[in-house]
Amino acid sequence: MNQPEAGTPPPVPETEYDIYRVKPGSTVDLTKWQTSEKGGFEKDEAKQLQKDVRDELAELQRKLYAEGQQSLLVVLQATDTGGKDGTIRNVFGGVNPQGVRVASFKQPTDEELAHDFLWRIHQETPARGMIRVFNRSHYEDVLIVRVKEIVPESVWRPRYHTINEFERGLALAGTRIVKIFLHISKDEQKARLQARLDDPNKHWKFSLGDLKEREYWEDYQQAFADMLTHCSTDYAPWYVIPADRKWYRNLVITRILVDVLKGMDPHYPQNEDDLSNVVIE
Amino acid sequence: MNQPEAGTPPPVPETEYDIYRVKPGSTVDLTKWQTSEKGGFEKDEAKQLQKDVRDELAELQRKLYAEGQQSLLVVLQATDTGGKDGTIRNVFGGVNPQGVRVASFKQPTDEELAHDFLWRIHQETPARGMIRVFNRSHYEDVLIVRVKEIVPESVWRPRYHTINEFERGLALAGTRIVKIFLHISKDEQKARLQARLDDPNKHWKFSLGDLKEREYWEDYQQAFADMLTHCSTDYAPWYVIPADRKWYRNLVITRILVDVLKGMDPHYPQNEDDLSNVVIE
Repeated sequence: MNQPEAGTPPPVPETEYDIYRVKPGSTVDLTKWQTSEKGGFEKDEAKQLQKDVRDELAELQRKLYAEGQQSLLVVLQATDTGGKDGTIRNVFGGVNPQGVRVASFKQPTDEELAHDFLWRIHQETPARGMIRVFNRSHYEDVLIVRVKEIVPESVWRPRYHTINEFERGLALAGTRIVKIFLHISKDEQKARLQARLDDPNKHWKFSLGDLKEREYWEDYQQAFADMLTHCSTDYAPWYVIPADRKWYRNLVITRILVDVLKGMDPHYPQNEDDLSNVVIE
Repeated sequence: MNQPEAGTPPPVPETEYDIYRVKPGSTVDLTKWQTSEKGGFEKDEAKQLQKDVRDELAELQRKLYAEGQQSLLVVLQATDTGGKDGTIRNVFGGVNPQGVRVASFKQPTDEELAHDFLWRIHQETPARGMIRVFNRSHYEDVLIVRVKEIVPESVWRPRYHTINEFERGLALAGTRIVKIFLHISKDEQKARLQARLDDPNKHWKFSLGDLKEREYWEDYQQAFADMLTHCSTDYAPWYVIPADRKWYRNLVITRILVDVLKGMDPHYPQNEDDLSNVVIE
């Protein structure tokens, strides 16, 4: 049998922050990637700038929605306290909620576990015209599942390939995929956990389980690195975002999304009817 | 057989704008309800105020989400060009998209039509902690379905009761239901359709079908009035919002939601563990 040819989806457009994009084929060593960089910005300046860029994002989303042909999938992964929730709030807070939907993947249900690991994911991929944000994702199945040895390596290792081919299928169908890894230092995680302890209004966010997870820090870093190494493709690249400074993280991510959407170049559609002589009674 | 007793859900909390709330048991004549009122406000003043109130909404949503016990369902209905999309964008644009989800109900699919009319609706009701916005809703099944005679009166007429009892069930389970009817005049609809014709960037929003629907204006007004008359309950009231002025509409709706959420009084949860001696390594 001849091997059928794989389709070649269009690459995700270039962005101003492609220094953070993981080059397909490269091997990622996370100790060599910045966590606290600020790109020469001061906090207030970056915050103001991010608001302006966010307005651009909102306008591009309107065109994407009106056009109804392409979609954007944003995958967010991070260690605990990495800032996924804050990123979603800040980056997408100004965008019309009618056009952006967040899917949070928690511990799988019994029904979900009765299927392959992509079953629940596929149900949440974006429709044409939509932006979908994944708060955690199918990558948990090569992260926590690997670190906690929930399945043996013979099961999780082939998933890198399965994921790449799944994402290829989405990309061929018109979905652009941007995958964001929020990269924080171990010290920054400590500070953020401490802040949750110190503020009674944040106690509900604190779990003793987080301290247990922290003991696996090195294992998680290795699992993240392997995920970044094996699953950054032209059509679904990973970006490693320095995320110790929330305001820099927000600015960079918003800009990446704006650049990608600009490259997707959505347009308000034409009306197929001749409207030149229409009179409204 | 004895008739079992119906549960009594808590009423939706009072709001500053309960003049627009349809009193259960009253008969609605829409010609007696304002469309162009502006409540003594000027445009710029109302817009600024709405932004402030929207910040309150965002903060209340965070508590609702953190608490994870109650949910809020906002149902939006209107004639074509009534402003549902603009309302969603303006009222919820500043709220964390992780906690608010919009469900748009379009023409039902074959699979949806193979079930009872509430089947697709029930799948979209909000989980605890969430705000869900319905852009159109189960009420289409007593509106367009009635006006276009898609089913006979013997089928659609009992739906008012079916809907009330469905909503009672949701309310008993912890969902507060706020139903918003955007009330515009026939002249305002004309102006809005004309604006879409005049601006090439809005042509995609214009459909010749909208002119056909406009011919049924009176029939729709009657169907709306009956819906408001039969389905405004203490636990799921209808509000008739003067919607000719978009900025007044936005302000009033945002305030209603803030007042309802305040009445729901969500709290950040306590942590059940003793955190007093926790040390982070």
